[in-house]
Amino acid sequence: MIKVKAFGGYSKIGKSMTAIDIDGEIILTDMGADIEKLVNFEEDKNDITVNDLTALIDNGVIPDDRNFFLEDGKKVKAIVLTHGHLDHIWAVPFLSQKYKCPVIATPFTIKVIENLMKNFKVRSLKLVQLNTGTMYKISDSIKLELVNITHSIPNSSMIALHTKQGVIIYANDWKFDNTPTLGKKPDYERLEELRKEGIFLLISDSTNAEVDGYTFSESVVKIMLEDIIKKSLDNKTIFISTFSSHIARIKNIVEISRKMNRNVMIFGRSMDMYIKAAISTGVINRGTLPEVTVRREQINNALKYVAERPGKYVIICTGHQGEKGAFLDKLVTGQYQYRLSNEDAVIFSSRTIPTPVNEANKGMLKNALESLNVNVADNVHVSGHASKNDHKLLIKMLMPKHLIPSHGGIEKLSANIELAREFGYELNKNSYIILDGQEITFQ
Amino acid sequence: MIKVKAFGGYSKIGKSMTAIDIDGEIILTDMGADIEKLVNFEEDKNDITVNDLTALIDNGVIPDDRNFFLEDGKKVKAIVLTHGHLDHIWAVPFLSQKYKCPVIATPFTIKVIENLMKNFKVRSLKLVQLNTGTMYKISDSIKLELVNITHSIPNSSMIALHTKQGVIIYANDWKFDNTPTLGKKPDYERLEELRKEGIFLLISDSTNAEVDGYTFSESVVKIMLEDIIKKSLDNKTIFISTFSSHIARIKNIVEISRKMNRNVMIFGRSMDMYIKAAISTGVINRGTLPEVTVRREQINNALKYVAERPGKYVIICTGHQGEKGAFLDKLVTGQYQYRLSNEDAVIFSSRTIPTPVNEANKGMLKNALESLNVNVADNVHVSGHASKNDHKLLIKMLMPKHLIPSHGGIEKLSANIELAREFGYELNKNSYIILDGQEITFQ
Amino acid sequence: MIKVKAFGGYSKIGKSMTAIDIDGEIILTDMGADIEKLVNFEEDKNDITVNDLTALIDNGVIPDDRNFFLEDGKKVKAIVLTHGHLDHIWAVPFLSQKYKCPVIATPFTIKVIENLMKNFKVRSLKLVQLNTGTMYKISDSIKLELVNITHSIPNSSMIALHTKQGVIIYANDWKFDNTPTLGKKPDYERLEELRKEGIFLLISDSTNAEVDGYTFSESVVKIMLEDIIKKSLDNKTIFISTFSSHIARIKNIVEISRKMNRNVMIFGRSMDMYIKAAISTGVINRGTLPEVTVRREQINNALKYVAERPGKYVIICTGHQGEKGAFLDKLVTGQYQYRLSNEDAVIFSSRTIPTPVNEANKGMLKNALESLNVNVADNVHVSGHASKNDHKLLIKMLMPKHLIPSHGGIEKLSANIELAREFGYELNKNSYIILDGQEITFQ
Amino acid sequence: MIKVKAFGGYSKIGKSMTAIDIDGEIILTDMGADIEKLVNFEEDKNDITVNDLTALIDNGVIPDDRNFFLEDGKKVKAIVLTHGHLDHIWAVPFLSQKYKCPVIATPFTIKVIENLMKNFKVRSLKLVQLNTGTMYKISDSIKLELVNITHSIPNSSMIALHTKQGVIIYANDWKFDNTPTLGKKPDYERLEELRKEGIFLLISDSTNAEVDGYTFSESVVKIMLEDIIKKSLDNKTIFISTFSSHIARIKNIVEISRKMNRNVMIFGRSMDMYIKAAISTGVINRGTLPEVTVRREQINNALKYVAERPGKYVIICTGHQGEKGAFLDKLVTGQYQYRLSNEDAVIFSSRTIPTPVNEANKGMLKNALESLNVNVADNVHVSGHASKNDHKLLIKMLMPKHLIPSHGGIEKLSANIELAREFGYELNKNSYIILDGQEITFQ
Repeated sequence: MIKVKAFGGYSKIGKSMTAIDIDGEIILTDMGADIEKLVNFEEDKNDITVNDLTALIDNGVIPDDRNFFLEDGKKVKAIVLTHGHLDHIWAVPFLSQKYKCPVIATPFTIKVIENLMKNFKVRSLKLVQLNTGTMYKISDSIKLELVNITHSIPNSSMIALHTKQGVIIYANDWKFDNTPTLGKKPDYERLEELRKEGIFLLISDSTNAEVDGYTFSESVVKIMLEDIIKKSLDNKTIFISTFSSHIARIKNIVEISRKMNRNVMIFGRSMDMYIKAAISTGVINRGTLPEVTVRREQINNALKYVAERPGKYVIICTGHQGEKGAFLDKLVTGQYQYRLSNEDAVIFSSRTIPTPVNEANKGMLKNALESLNVNVADNVHVSGHASKNDHKLLIKMLMPKHLIPSHGGIEKLSANIELAREFGYELNKNSYIILDGQEITFQ
Repeated sequence: MIKVKAFGGYSKIGKSMTAIDIDGEIILTDMGADIEKLVNFEEDKNDITVNDLTALIDNGVIPDDRNFFLEDGKKVKAIVLTHGHLDHIWAVPFLSQKYKCPVIATPFTIKVIENLMKNFKVRSLKLVQLNTGTMYKISDSIKLELVNITHSIPNSSMIALHTKQGVIIYANDWKFDNTPTLGKKPDYERLEELRKEGIFLLISDSTNAEVDGYTFSESVVKIMLEDIIKKSLDNKTIFISTFSSHIARIKNIVEISRKMNRNVMIFGRSMDMYIKAAISTGVINRGTLPEVTVRREQINNALKYVAERPGKYVIICTGHQGEKGAFLDKLVTGQYQYRLSNEDAVIFSSRTIPTPVNEANKGMLKNALESLNVNVADNVHVSGHASKNDHKLLIKMLMPKHLIPSHGGIEKLSANIELAREFGYELNKNSYIILDGQEITFQ
Repeated sequence: MIKVKAFGGYSKIGKSMTAIDIDGEIILTDMGADIEKLVNFEEDKNDITVNDLTALIDNGVIPDDRNFFLEDGKKVKAIVLTHGHLDHIWAVPFLSQKYKCPVIATPFTIKVIENLMKNFKVRSLKLVQLNTGTMYKISDSIKLELVNITHSIPNSSMIALHTKQGVIIYANDWKFDNTPTLGKKPDYERLEELRKEGIFLLISDSTNAEVDGYTFSESVVKIMLEDIIKKSLDNKTIFISTFSSHIARIKNIVEISRKMNRNVMIFGRSMDMYIKAAISTGVINRGTLPEVTVRREQINNALKYVAERPGKYVIICTGHQGEKGAFLDKLVTGQYQYRLSNEDAVIFSSRTIPTPVNEANKGMLKNALESLNVNVADNVHVSGHASKNDHKLLIKMLMPKHLIPSHGGIEKLSANIELAREFGYELNKNSYIILDGQEITFQ
Repeated sequence: MIKVKAFGGYSKIGKSMTAIDIDGEIILTDMGADIEKLVNFEEDKNDITVNDLTALIDNGVIPDDRNFFLEDGKKVKAIVLTHGHLDHIWAVPFLSQKYKCPVIATPFTIKVIENLMKNFKVRSLKLVQLNTGTMYKISDSIKLELVNITHSIPNSSMIALHTKQGVIIYANDWKFDNTPTLGKKPDYERLEELRKEGIFLLISDSTNAEVDGYTFSESVVKIMLEDIIKKSLDNKTIFISTFSSHIARIKNIVEISRKMNRNVMIFGRSMDMYIKAAISTGVINRGTLPEVTVRREQINNALKYVAERPGKYVIICTGHQGEKGAFLDKLVTGQYQYRLSNEDAVIFSSRTIPTPVNEANKGMLKNALESLNVNVADNVHVSGHASKNDHKLLIKMLMPKHLIPSHGGIEKLSANIELAREFGYELNKNSYIILDGQEITFQ
């Protein structure tokens, strides 16, 4: 008997967590936060600690596993994480300890979790680094394997559980990037082998299941960035903002900038954290990227230095969502000693995540930049999530016996159900919609 | 005294033609058709001949120069064309002869005009090939020069007229592509030199003046195509449709396909025409591209051959706008002996030009492809027209005394006026909106 | 045991048909066509006859009941139709006969079916007119009742089946119009009573389940029309196009026009058919509306007459979707002896149904009107389908044990599932998604 | 010689002010604020006083008339205001005094200005109430007349200046409402007469010049509100938020509510101000509307009272733009002792004015309402500005010698230029685009 219980990520993107019960042994996959609600929570309360556990659950910031723990907590054999994004791992310091079991992920992901634990002063004794391609025995009947996949953060993986019913694949947050600019391309060979073994169940990302066509490779962004930076070279300073965890993107910006004879500075605490995690796990070599400037005063000094050297610097920074208090917001509101003008460039290597707060912040930031006549380029970005045709490729590759879409609201899950129809998947027969709080049992 | 008269392209994109009167000597720049109206006209009347001249003018297909010719026809010293797109040159066979003056353009553009003349059985004695970078004396007081620029067709140019008032630049249909995949990048050095000489007037493309940011290079499309074709390699046949005149794009598709061990076939009469023009003018070498298959029967035979060789062919073809009677329309409606299935791919390396007819045709084509579960990728494309920031770069580069936006309706022209404001251009003082049929005089 | 089988209308709007099996006795509800596919089918084949049955099924124009008939045909006790729209009744002449059972509907709906039968030269012996509010015994264990509801066609009803498990309500194509301009408002009292009896199952329209707020009453359109017509009174002729079956709308236009001292003419065969059906069933009185002009020659003569009487006429006509061959298309393409100018008005009292063909036709029609400077008003219309908040009202009113959304693709069905959540409906527990071809059984 | 100088409202909506120089005598029309910038300014500085004059100008909140005053200040003979919206009058207390001339407007507008003056502790000695339809002698050669027009605030007028060159009409913020629910319909007769007198110049609103069709009457909203309120009657409390100055709308809500046996309360200081202005100028009778509750504590008490009387109250309140600190924001964030639930209704009788801040605030407000399952209806509203066809009606009615669009950015002005073309208006010949800071002279 296999039972799948959806804790988060099946009614809305965010707060991913699933329990997979295999004949009485349970694996928890992912343990994330609802980022939108986390931001609201943080606004009211600056210093979150482990004492906020109940409030975090009650405010919908992290999954509610209370009843589950009481009933089934002892059956949990492992917590496995796919990658280091906060909507997949942020809840680990709060929820994982009470399950007396290992927390397993790839090295970079583990490093990010260690940082979270440090922040929240939580000690966990059972963090297990597992490289992709290695088998890990969870119990006599369950073996775990992480399969290398591409996404917008290093060391992303699909979770493969070998059971006597067949392989269960939990594939959350993935794209098929055949020419990644950091790390390896998806391990298609291994996926093919797993298919031969027989896939019992595929749980798969639905973020872009409604988007036609394919998701482009990071190589496309690399050449877009090269193009835009080249056009911005006459500008005094080029500010580029992107996701702090997107190490590949950051590395590309640094390389392109240097190739074009610009020095690079990187600003921001989150940049520092992810880059250090990348270095310490060998994702990138020390020295590939410049040191990150973190302290406000140092950033200000750096900017004064840069202001005196027009045409010499590219600044990689935070604030692409227009977040209040992030670097770009402070820069545009005059909180640093650098005066933006129509001789500067600001490049957003990201897209605006569509929440009202983000859209407002970004709108106001762009208005402010426009009133200063700053040269702006937005959306120099491609998604980290598979599009419709990529999903079809994965399904064709795996041909699972059962299919459960995740990572989306019911419309996105439905789109994933729809696209599978051409391969013979039929709703409620071998493809299923389950929403947060629901479960499904396969006899 | 300099006088600019707008015949077409100032109230709507299409039918470009401008008269520039320099102290009594007139240069006509561009001489195109309104493509939407041309399509309607052709529907009613299959074989257009020079006898349709009046009907073409009355139906708004080509510029109405009748009164102008009577009054000022004798003052016309040259007809100069920027590039070979039909909205810039289609009217040449109909309108140019009565002006007893040379028709001047770059070699590829001239070749396309020769083909048009052949079609309409028109003989013109005064076609003049002018290479970019060469000076041509039009009269004692006017010298002409074509400046190399990038666009979505080979051999595109800006027109520079050297007059005693300064240089007049007519810049229609251009983008700044710093890494073009065919031909040279824009001749920035020459533009800088012209600026030093003093630019009296800039007439400039407004197609994308309302689009934020920069227009990406053709190199970006090249890597997008590589990415998409790679993902389509498991498909039996990959059909890619693009603009027939976009030789750079076609060449890239051929190169990528061959690199991935697929043979290429090219189908369609218009493909054949433009490719031959490109070869005969040295834009590409003979042998770079495969022979084009033109006749229906041969295309059918070729398809039968391809059908028996799954995984071996890429087909470059017409029909990306869903045009009735073009290859893709015939293919999907079963008029060829090739049955599309979910094992084929159709890639649209274009965007749908937004007219009701195109949108309907494309919508129906895509519906049909979807009902066959064909793998479709659309919009694998970047524009051939400058965006807002590119326009700012040009203005900064040239700093003309006067600015007249063209190639758009009043909204697009307005957007071009707006973006120039930061450089001190003010409406009716040194930037101007003129619409089709209007003129403006500089004393 | 109750079993619901979805034939059409659960994967896409159109082709509505559902089989409800109650302990071995089956009721078929609705029997419609996929209008988009019907239009395509008609394009290829002008005269559809009953001999086209197989082709109609194979082309997806009408539901495929072939296997069902073989297996369960004899169990069918009644075919019940909700209202007279073709996506709910068009297939009756083709599919109903072989089931030896009555076809039951309200009088106006029956009349429309009779017209269809006449067209296709089909004779059915068992058409049963059932007024809303009357009980009809289908068998010892099943009683049928039609409950008066509002929609965009007269005599619309919800189907209520009284069974020993409780009441089953099939509610397709409805809105809550509390101030209808023709007929009565929804029979809320009866719905309340049925709820007390206990609702076992609600199958409900999802067309606008994703649209926020409430759907406005036809009274809103009435006053909109009054406003627009008043503003158009200086025009020579006012052409108003709306749905032929929307008798309430047509009646309102006539009344408003007369109040403003304009005579009214109505043009078109479909107008004639529906209006006659309305008169013969007492929906409107004879004399309420003017005679309909049907024949092309007569229409032409009428137009000549109208052209000579500027300011005197309102013409109600077909063609609001831009359909080729309908009145407005012919008018604008000069096929009648009436020259449109900027002194005429064309009012579209409809919205464009979003298919590629409609959007193209409508776009071209509007372009043509614009080029003649005709005064156009579009979208003078409100929907005939319930919005999100209306759905909530129905659910609160009925509180069914089980809920199955219909009339939409999976996204619309999902939206209906979503909005029910606040009342405790949970997917797969007491609310369900079934798609065309699927069935669900309640033990 | 007539000269028109644009101070504000010609490059962006807001900050309306125009100087019309008639042979050396100047009339200033409107004197408003840029509301978006005013909101930002207020955020930084709570108590604006007349000492902020320079800062207000420098921050772009009010028109910059400094140079103008020095040069031409003495020529100003009158300041005339069209209506009481703040983007047309807010700057009066700051700018008007130094011109030693009367400030003229309709009674309600004057009342609103008096309130502003009280707020800013400014005394102006020359406020002149002028009823529509009355002639006012400004000088020997200029007579002023206010023509009754409809808009979304009482007592709106077009300004007509009788000069020896002909009539100059300044028509800002108007719609053609033929069935207004408060006040009279537009004075078409007078406009016709003025036309006979000969219109030299029309300066006209362009807000919705790009919107197809006609703008609907307030009667349409009235019936929409009736429909929505009727559907909300089962709810405990119905909260309706609209513009405080929209007295007609407020009056309709009160009447409808009472008709449906609901008592009404009105909350908010701005509601109080406008309603009092309306009463004191006879726009509505005392007693037509309930007393407004203004103080926070009283509002809280009222809400407690209402909470105990479910089904009995309609609350008219502020906050429809989601403004922080307005009633709805406070209500939803729990700052009052009233708990919203799925048994309450919130109706927005407004549209969201599209600035990033508004869109964010409104988005967050609606999210919060949704998470409480409150029944929401948005956009129960029609615009107060003329659409494309209404503009054509005005032009046809007046046939001015010259046309200058105002109240919009260059795109909206362009749309107004475009729609006038069918009547023979040609850009730069008899229709003109001038932007803020520019002027145009008619010899």
